[in-house]
Amino acid sequence: MTISLARGIPAPECLPVEELAECAEAALRGDGETILSYGSTLGYGPLREWIAERHGVEPGCVVVTNGSLQVFHLLLSALPAGRVLVERPTYDRPRKVLLELGRELGEVGIDADGMDVGELERVLGEGSPPALLYTIPTFQNPTGSTLSVERRRRVAGLADERALPVLEDDPYGLVRFEGEPLPSIFELEGGEHVMYSSSFSKTVAPGLRVGYAIVPAALASQIEPLAAATYITPALLAQATVHEFLRRGLLEPSLERVCGLLRERRDAMLEALERGLSGRARWTEPEGGYFVWLELADDVGASELLARAQDAGVTFVPGADFGGAPNTARLAFSFVSPAEIEEGVARLARLVTATTAPV
Amino acid sequence: MTISLARGIPAPECLPVEELAECAEAALRGDGETILSYGSTLGYGPLREWIAERHGVEPGCVVVTNGSLQVFHLLLSALPAGRVLVERPTYDRPRKVLLELGRELGEVGIDADGMDVGELERVLGEGSPPALLYTIPTFQNPTGSTLSVERRRRVAGLADERALPVLEDDPYGLVRFEGEPLPSIFELEGGEHVMYSSSFSKTVAPGLRVGYAIVPAALASQIEPLAAATYITPALLAQATVHEFLRRGLLEPSLERVCGLLRERRDAMLEALERGLSGRARWTEPEGGYFVWLELADDVGASELLARAQDAGVTFVPGADFGGAPNTARLAFSFVSPAEIEEGVARLARLVTATTAPV
Repeated sequence: MTISLARGIPAPECLPVEELAECAEAALRGDGETILSYGSTLGYGPLREWIAERHGVEPGCVVVTNGSLQVFHLLLSALPAGRVLVERPTYDRPRKVLLELGRELGEVGIDADGMDVGELERVLGEGSPPALLYTIPTFQNPTGSTLSVERRRRVAGLADERALPVLEDDPYGLVRFEGEPLPSIFELEGGEHVMYSSSFSKTVAPGLRVGYAIVPAALASQIEPLAAATYITPALLAQATVHEFLRRGLLEPSLERVCGLLRERRDAMLEALERGLSGRARWTEPEGGYFVWLELADDVGASELLARAQDAGVTFVPGADFGGAPNTARLAFSFVSPAEIEEGVARLARLVTATTAPV
Repeated sequence: MTISLARGIPAPECLPVEELAECAEAALRGDGETILSYGSTLGYGPLREWIAERHGVEPGCVVVTNGSLQVFHLLLSALPAGRVLVERPTYDRPRKVLLELGRELGEVGIDADGMDVGELERVLGEGSPPALLYTIPTFQNPTGSTLSVERRRRVAGLADERALPVLEDDPYGLVRFEGEPLPSIFELEGGEHVMYSSSFSKTVAPGLRVGYAIVPAALASQIEPLAAATYITPALLAQATVHEFLRRGLLEPSLERVCGLLRERRDAMLEALERGLSGRARWTEPEGGYFVWLELADDVGASELLARAQDAGVTFVPGADFGGAPNTARLAFSFVSPAEIEEGVARLARLVTATTAPV
């Protein structure tokens, strides 16, 4: 059977099925008329209030959508035209959305401490002021890198100095297995130019499609008619189910279980990489999230490797899909079991070792 | 209290809250891992199968989205550019979407028997072949008009002869209080050029946001990556809840209740119009749906009337919002009670009578 180190989705055993079944029923019995009607264009009221309280903002700043990719689309429609800065590599879906919309991309490199802020300053100095900087500073997709506190302060400072709109996308922040949580760029900047998006996909369940953004209230008002023109009302049943889950205090125990399951998988992956590829590749060592970023010898093409890996029963995503170099790859440890991860990485290591010299 | 003849939404007592609470819980307990995961880009598998069987097509032709407005967006992205033909007046949301996208609109008039097919032929003869004809042939929003069988055959014939892509939007078809159901244009044509969209908003509950389209399988395959790039996966919990509702045989009793409640309201509206505006206005007499279309004397402006009506405690939507004439208005009988409808129409009639001569 093929082992997927490609799928950046939670293992089925992470999903709190029974709890959500009870929450969905309770939400409908408690507030069915609201949930089952049109209205609430910017999201289910009680959930907007919960999110607002958690982030210390007014509910009018919270936009809850059918997953956070949808809020990215809405933001792009509401913000002025112009080039968008992204990390290189970055999450493939927004990257593709931007390319398909014909938006000019500016790319900023990333290392083990996250986005290279010196390069960001250089890119900001070239050409017209960008319409948006899109960044995933914590356990980034695809690299697993986390932006250091010092760099976060510098990004927040740049946003303020240059009135640079920033979208801090943070779906993985709460999925931390170890180490201290870092302040968000949004918190450091105060939310004037920095917007924040996240979702309950990695903390509760992805299929619920409950994502959100925190934006200035005036921008939320601009987004409201755009959301109405797209889907009238978002998926309120899922939003109310998430709210019930939160209200019952189930988020913390769920996170604890999810982080426990993911930590084992991350450990299995790092150990297997050490065993199989030590001296032949480099990789990130994330303290949370779903992904490890693999950098192979310069002459190893990850796309060619993938073709052979599929024959050997293991898959991953080549880094080029995220705008990364040809010799890089994203390995997801979120989906398969620790034993499968061990076996999958071992298969990969055998292929790499058979064809390359040590780096 | 203001009486809303503006809101085209079901009365709260139409919503099967308790049944849906049970269905949501059962759906999650029965198939939670699928519902709570990514995947199923074109909709929840068992629901696609149910819809396919009902319409006599393959499940691969069924696209289930977050409400049917979303599928309209996706279709527009997948189909070639070019002008879009719509009825005059037509449902305001797609009309606005088209105008905001900068699409050229061609308009075809509508009378008590639906779209004027002679005019459609003339419009088809002018300029380049249109990219799409968007039509709501049954209990149209906003007019309540229903396209006659003869005209349906002619539209189906035109679609075939001219390879004209048609989207038949049919959210109200099952909400029929009396008279025989008519064959859809989709059925008459066989689904080669005619696509069909509908939803469970008017038959189960609008807040669930479960809409769908039936399109050629090749077009569904084109839509799949567009849907993934927009929201990754649609709202599966709502889709699975609707599927459980259907599986339990709850649609027919629900429809019977909804039609009963709406028939009373339609009757109340027609009687009140007869009492208050006979000889001073004309209106449609729909056999189903949510709406009556009111045509006032030529010199009565519905927008001015609305301002005065709001002061008098009743609201409606001026026909101009749908591309209709200045002396027309949409009256929704779906939302408020029969007694409120009687009172609302009486208030309106007093205003009209005070300021106009009989037509």
